[in-house]
Amino acid sequence: MSAYCLATYRSFDEKADFHKKAQGIAVGLTVGSWTELPEAQKASMEKHLGKVVSVDVHEPAAGESLSGRYADITIAYPDVNFSRDIPALLVTVFGKLSMDGKIKLIDLKFSTDFLAGFPGPKFGLQGVRDLLGVHDRPLLMSIFKSVVGYELPALREQFYLQAAGGVDLIKDDEILFENPLTPMEKRIAVCLEAAEQASKETGQKLLYAVNLTGPTSQLAARAKRAISEGANALLFNVLAYGFDVLHELSTDPAINVPIMAHPAMAGATYPSPHYGIAASVLLGKLMRIAGADLVLFPSPYGSVVMPKEENLAIKQVLLTQDLRNDYSYQAEADASLKLATSFPVPSAGIHPGIVPLILRDFGTDVIVNAGGGIHGHPMGTIAGGHAFRQAIDATLQGVHLRDYAQTHPELKAAIDTWGIKE
Amino acid sequence: MSAYCLATYRSFDEKADFHKKAQGIAVGLTVGSWTELPEAQKASMEKHLGKVVSVDVHEPAAGESLSGRYADITIAYPDVNFSRDIPALLVTVFGKLSMDGKIKLIDLKFSTDFLAGFPGPKFGLQGVRDLLGVHDRPLLMSIFKSVVGYELPALREQFYLQAAGGVDLIKDDEILFENPLTPMEKRIAVCLEAAEQASKETGQKLLYAVNLTGPTSQLAARAKRAISEGANALLFNVLAYGFDVLHELSTDPAINVPIMAHPAMAGATYPSPHYGIAASVLLGKLMRIAGADLVLFPSPYGSVVMPKEENLAIKQVLLTQDLRNDYSYQAEADASLKLATSFPVPSAGIHPGIVPLILRDFGTDVIVNAGGGIHGHPMGTIAGGHAFRQAIDATLQGVHLRDYAQTHPELKAAIDTWGIKE
Repeated sequence: MSAYCLATYRSFDEKADFHKKAQGIAVGLTVGSWTELPEAQKASMEKHLGKVVSVDVHEPAAGESLSGRYADITIAYPDVNFSRDIPALLVTVFGKLSMDGKIKLIDLKFSTDFLAGFPGPKFGLQGVRDLLGVHDRPLLMSIFKSVVGYELPALREQFYLQAAGGVDLIKDDEILFENPLTPMEKRIAVCLEAAEQASKETGQKLLYAVNLTGPTSQLAARAKRAISEGANALLFNVLAYGFDVLHELSTDPAINVPIMAHPAMAGATYPSPHYGIAASVLLGKLMRIAGADLVLFPSPYGSVVMPKEENLAIKQVLLTQDLRNDYSYQAEADASLKLATSFPVPSAGIHPGIVPLILRDFGTDVIVNAGGGIHGHPMGTIAGGHAFRQAIDATLQGVHLRDYAQTHPELKAAIDTWGIKE
Repeated sequence: MSAYCLATYRSFDEKADFHKKAQGIAVGLTVGSWTELPEAQKASMEKHLGKVVSVDVHEPAAGESLSGRYADITIAYPDVNFSRDIPALLVTVFGKLSMDGKIKLIDLKFSTDFLAGFPGPKFGLQGVRDLLGVHDRPLLMSIFKSVVGYELPALREQFYLQAAGGVDLIKDDEILFENPLTPMEKRIAVCLEAAEQASKETGQKLLYAVNLTGPTSQLAARAKRAISEGANALLFNVLAYGFDVLHELSTDPAINVPIMAHPAMAGATYPSPHYGIAASVLLGKLMRIAGADLVLFPSPYGSVVMPKEENLAIKQVLLTQDLRNDYSYQAEADASLKLATSFPVPSAGIHPGIVPLILRDFGTDVIVNAGGGIHGHPMGTIAGGHAFRQAIDATLQGVHLRDYAQTHPELKAAIDTWGIKE
């Protein structure tokens, strides 16, 4: 029995016969030609042939521009046509097709067979919580303020101030590469020392995600060196390297720390309505099957904005247990196959007055990630961390931030500075 | 003395102060903050600070929509901030920024220092011509008609018919992955055997570009295995794996055959006017510095279309000797640094009647690449190759195809089928 992976496209065209187009995709991206094949050959080729699953045409209303005419087309691609890796899947379903007019890949659904090649996040949401020993609240993460051109003592100081404020995770800046001022090994040493100092004061554990950079073939070795130096998490610019590189790193048994996927470059691919790959696929499904334990993406709250519905679509695919295809064409009688969930990290423009919105939109299985909202606190970086923790506590207790701020001066100062977003 | 790489963006905004935005990019993507730094620190940080090179604002004319308001902004990024690899450069100049509203990366210029890390194509245009012993005409390449689901004898037959028609290069289909019917080693064996048979008849040499697929970490070993089996060229889906993977493959001394870059997935990135990366950067400069000897891209002639000016921009950066930055801010007194040029391969929708247009637009340093235009010839695949060679000969001799066709029945049949595009 064959299994199929499904791709859904939004295709814009003012006058196309979308059903014919769908048939063209199903044949063109698989066996190449079909109707002219001899019947005997059809029998042997049938298992390689793509199938049109659905074509939903959206005609513009009377008086509306034809430029808004589109169809959502779902095609089933036989697994037998491609190897069990993300490059093969993407080249099959959106290699040549990506260049064929206004067309966007808006969903992917994986067969049980295909997913079997992807163990997914090694830690996932639950594993990250276990490492930190925090199960009852959203986590708090912070980002260095400035790193390029800074020396080790300045980096250590920034790290300590963030850690002392009670954050759970600190990540390297994604633009911090191997450099003479703060090379990876030395950076790990001073930051972990600062983490230990802070931990004595806060009683908390902390994950430091070190930016994994350099030539592709050396990444695994560099990751292992970072881990041997004490790094307890990694940051990775997945889209600058490719999903398969993340997949190989995440399935390497010796890389036994959580991997945090950074969305750098993602804006080159998801935002256009007419081209590219939807955010829920790019930063959601593909990141998760490739093994990202935590996934950063632009929040709908700040200056770097993603529409709320796209954010929630990412959240949904990161947190929904089963990513299998529900397409029953020659469906497998399949065993249970569950991936660990990935921690969603909506980022950018976050200050304590936004925490209630984050928890309303994401629930408690979310990481509140702040940069300027911590470092820019009028009472300093440590107070900045405290203000966030207070905002989280207040929201979990169902207390309005303004009321909680009466007895929590750090939160009050934050609110006086940035306000509360309702 | 510091060196700089330059990035140019097209930023759309109905009301932004683009000069302020440019300053924000120059600081935000480098040192993080500037005006508030103490003077002493500024002195040490200055070499890490990005510089605004130019801001060209295009205000819409009176009565035009403000949605067309944009600026082309060029920023110089100090090399000292990033390592000598494409992921580091891209994450620096377009990592976070790609997600910051309507902004497209439209050009990159490399410093002498940065380029020094990129030997470029190992063969390049000249090397490919040398391998084939053809220096006086455009090359002819063909593509298999259908491959998925076919067995070795059918593949061999298709290969032979293409080769016997006088093509110079044959490429695997980019969606042909490792599979039980036509595994790589066996495919190479039967295709090279067919090539030899055809060569006895045509007296020509031929390059067969074998699709390099599979897990990233195994690509180099697979490439070497292909070469040891006799493969004399490789096809690679660069964008599904990342530019750095191509860079590492192309700089591996043991991978001593030309690498052909396929543009699969490129349409997810270049076509939008508001987002992504321009085709001349994605399929031009980055492919070339990463070491692609041949680069396929959608032609402006066929069904998968790219506007002509974008095509010519790709051609120009593939064929222009010097890709260095002409930005003289603290300019290097630099040695000559020249990359081999990459062979441009405009693809899709090509039939013999289009050959005069291709040569008019690209000159003779181009590869005429055809699929349906060869296999669909009414007199068969061999005649299809002949028709193309005749069209090339006619055009080089300055003879109109219609006249040349009087004495060349294959060309005549092609023209009768597909016409001549003027």
